[in-house]
Amino acid sequence: MIEQQIKTAIRDIHDFPKPGIIFKDITPILKDPILCTKITDAFIEKLQGMQIDAIAGVESRGFLFGLTLATRLGVPFIPVRKAGKLPHTVNQKVYELEYGTATIEIHTDAFSPGDRILIHDDLLATGGTVTATSELIQDMGGHVAGFTFVVGLGFLNGLEKISPISNNIIVLADY
Amino acid sequence: MIEQQIKTAIRDIHDFPKPGIIFKDITPILKDPILCTKITDAFIEKLQGMQIDAIAGVESRGFLFGLTLATRLGVPFIPVRKAGKLPHTVNQKVYELEYGTATIEIHTDAFSPGDRILIHDDLLATGGTVTATSELIQDMGGHVAGFTFVVGLGFLNGLEKISPISNNIIVLADY
Repeated sequence: MIEQQIKTAIRDIHDFPKPGIIFKDITPILKDPILCTKITDAFIEKLQGMQIDAIAGVESRGFLFGLTLATRLGVPFIPVRKAGKLPHTVNQKVYELEYGTATIEIHTDAFSPGDRILIHDDLLATGGTVTATSELIQDMGGHVAGFTFVVGLGFLNGLEKISPISNNIIVLADY
Repeated sequence: MIEQQIKTAIRDIHDFPKPGIIFKDITPILKDPILCTKITDAFIEKLQGMQIDAIAGVESRGFLFGLTLATRLGVPFIPVRKAGKLPHTVNQKVYELEYGTATIEIHTDAFSPGDRILIHDDLLATGGTVTATSELIQDMGGHVAGFTFVVGLGFLNGLEKISPISNNIIVLADY
């Protein structure tokens, strides 16, 4: 039921960010505060019984439900940011994009070794950024407790990429 | 009391993003879910009685408490983003930075003319971005209901810049 409500809200944008891509626009979800609450409730219900010490949210759209979820679960929120945005000392991971590379960073003191970190983003596409986030968390001595996404684009095979990292993968609306 | 708790959590980072600047790092706040809840509670208490039709949050850090606040108040959240990030048709505003210009965008259908929009960001510095956001909202037929910031840097005179737009300015921790 939540899946259908999300899919009804999401808007397809053709040829964004480039020709041939159909972009799933989540901004209509953000216009609906009742749906936003249901999304957070759905994540929390599905996370029942999992040991989670912190939630890492990927800039920028992973900040939206990421902080709400962390606050509701009563655990710290870890911002995962693009290079140069976090002010304190950082660990970083460079990863491959279709053309070129990108770099993500986490503060060195964002969590303690052994902590179980849940990674959140709004949308799972190819899984490149969350895989890099997972590797960075593991490099820093953390465990990846699982992943949460509002939307998944199944045809891009992101699930196959991240399932070896953790089988705890929650996708509320899968295409 | 909330002000002191925020100030205790905030970390001063010297020479970020450039020499001579002391940056107020809010990430330790995000590590404390009880403080995050208190911050949202404090905003809601101070917003009592105000008519707010939507909350506009400024990318990226305004997404953090912005969505939480909108969901708690039961109103839509409007993402204000840098140029090229929003997928649907947008209105935009170009504004001056210390060196060069920046552009912010809002979806054309983000709100209805006459709506009263509260603008949220984590930190008020010179007020340049939120002033541009205000102007963009007014260009689109909206009213600026007020502003909320977790932190304010009073010595940068952002308050003087935005107070002609709206006197409803909530700053939880002012320096």
